[in-house]
Parts: sequence; structure tokens; C-alpha cells
Amino acid sequence: MKPNFRKASPGFRWEGVDLLAYKDEGAAPFKSISRQTLFHVEQLAGELRYFEIAPGGYSTLERHEHMHAVMILRGRGRCLLGGEVRAVAAHDLVTIPSWTWHQFRADAGESLGFLCLVNKERDRPKLPSSEELAELRADPVVAAFFDGARDAG
Amino acid sequence: MKPNFRKASPGFRWEGVDLLAYKDEGAAPFKSISRQTLFHVEQLAGELRYFEIAPGGYSTLERHEHMHAVMILRGRGRCLLGGEVRAVAAHDLVTIPSWTWHQFRADAGESLGFLCLVNKERDRPKLPSSEELAELRADPVVAAFFDGARDAG
Repeated sequence: MKPNFRKASPGFRWEGVDLLAYKDEGAAPFKSISRQTLFHVEQLAGELRYFEIAPGGYSTLERHEHMHAVMILRGRGRCLLGGEVRAVAAHDLVTIPSWTWHQFRADAGESLGFLCLVNKERDRPKLPSSEELAELRADPVVAAFFDGARDAG
Repeated sequence: MKPNFRKASPGFRWEGVDLLAYKDEGAAPFKSISRQTLFHVEQLAGELRYFEIAPGGYSTLERHEHMHAVMILRGRGRCLLGGEVRAVAAHDLVTIPSWTWHQFRADAGESLGFLCLVNKERDRPKLPSSEELAELRADPVVAAFFDGARDAG
């Protein structure tokens, strides 16, 4: 059992919280991202994680039935949600509805760290087919986001 | 329905998020504290709130069956948990187990803001009886905390 008080350490780490790989290697495309599970306890139906994307990195482009409730905690980046790309910065809130394609990218000079609340019981993410990816890419704003252009949003 | 992107505003406010009274007036003792519900949506079993205690203010001393998962977001203060008093600062984590007396106090010169994750379905808090309060006060560290002394923890 975790202690009830866990101090924050420099660099967005926490006492007694392991720094984990974001996903299994090779499971899905992603770059330069780590995961820390801050709260995962029997009595809570939700689970709170902290993800951090290093400058220029990105999370997996995916969708799923379960919802994400996100608060940016540090840095700057962009978020693709459905067909929309938005700039995000510290303390901004992002709701990721069911079955909506989403991906986070850190800006070139900035780490992007965010809290993500999910239900403990949830389905596994789905990756886009090549057809779905082509559909998303048909929008030049989304294509620029995938290509890491910094002026979108 | 809330928009999916909600920007943070200066002063720990958010677009489309109302600043609410902490509790109904007269329901329980507290001082200088506000509440904002950041995420409360049908598809999530958890609910994420932001509380902010002005300098010298405090939350209600209470306990309940449901658990709180807390991350400090700004400022400095102290937290009473069971018989223990600890200093807390930005990004520290506090787990408040079932039926454990707890109270947060902001330091004299600092607002204390924190995220609190709870299950949407939860029981109502219980206040201490005068006997229970006397028991807690029997510990000089706890008594100093109640009296707002700043050197505890």
C-alpha cells in the first residue's frame, strides 16, 4: 500500500511512484513519452495518471470507448481531437469523448506533461487503419499536425 | 455539455467552469474556500474538483466512507490526516482513506489550491462530535494545527 503522503520531487516525479514505459515497445507508434500512475486504489473507480512527452515527442494516435479527462500540468503542445487541432498549455482541460481520435504532441522546445483521469475498468485503444489515417490526413491542418509542424492550432 | 477544450484563465479559473461555494452556508465550519468542478461527466465514474483555500482559511474537519485522492496544485499549507499533520506544497499527493479525519489549512501568506478526485457515487461527510474533537485535540500537534499555528508539520 502506498503511504498517504507522497511528496513531489523535482522534475515532475513523486515519492514511491515508478516511472514507467508509456506502452509496450512495438505495441503502437509513439515517441519520447513516460507514464506514472499517481492514484490507482481499490476504493476509487477512477485512476489518475501523469504522462510526460519530451520535446518533439507524441502519444499514440488512437481511439476507444472510454473517456479521458485531461489537465495539462506543464509545458506546451498541441492536441488533435477528432478533426480539430488545438494548442494546449498548463492547466488547460481537455475532454476526450468516446471513439474520438486523439493524439498529444509536445512543442519542439517544451516537455508536455498532463494528468489523465480514466475509469479503472476500460476497453483497449484501437489504432487507425491506413484508410482512417488517410481520411484524417485529408485535412491539411491535421496533416501538418502529424508532420510535426508547429504553427497549427 | 461542456466544450472539449477549456482553457485555463489567470488565477486558477477555467473557461466554462463556475466558481461555487464550498458548501452550503452554515452546514459545517470552514473558512475562505471555493470549489470548481472540472470534470463531472456521465461516462466517468470519478469526478475531479479544484478547491482553493485563501491565506489562513481551512476546509471542514470531517470524515466519510469515500476516499479522496488529492494533488496540491498551488501554494502551501498543512493537512491533518488522522492524527498526523504534514506540510503540503505544489504537486504533493495525499490519499485520504475511508473514515479518516481530515482538514486542509492554507498557510498565512499563501493560497492553497488542490485537485480532489472522488467517486461520483459517495456518502455524505460526518462532522466530529465534541468528544471526538476533544480526542483529536489531546495531541498538541493537532491542537496547534486547529489553532492555526504555523510551525506544525
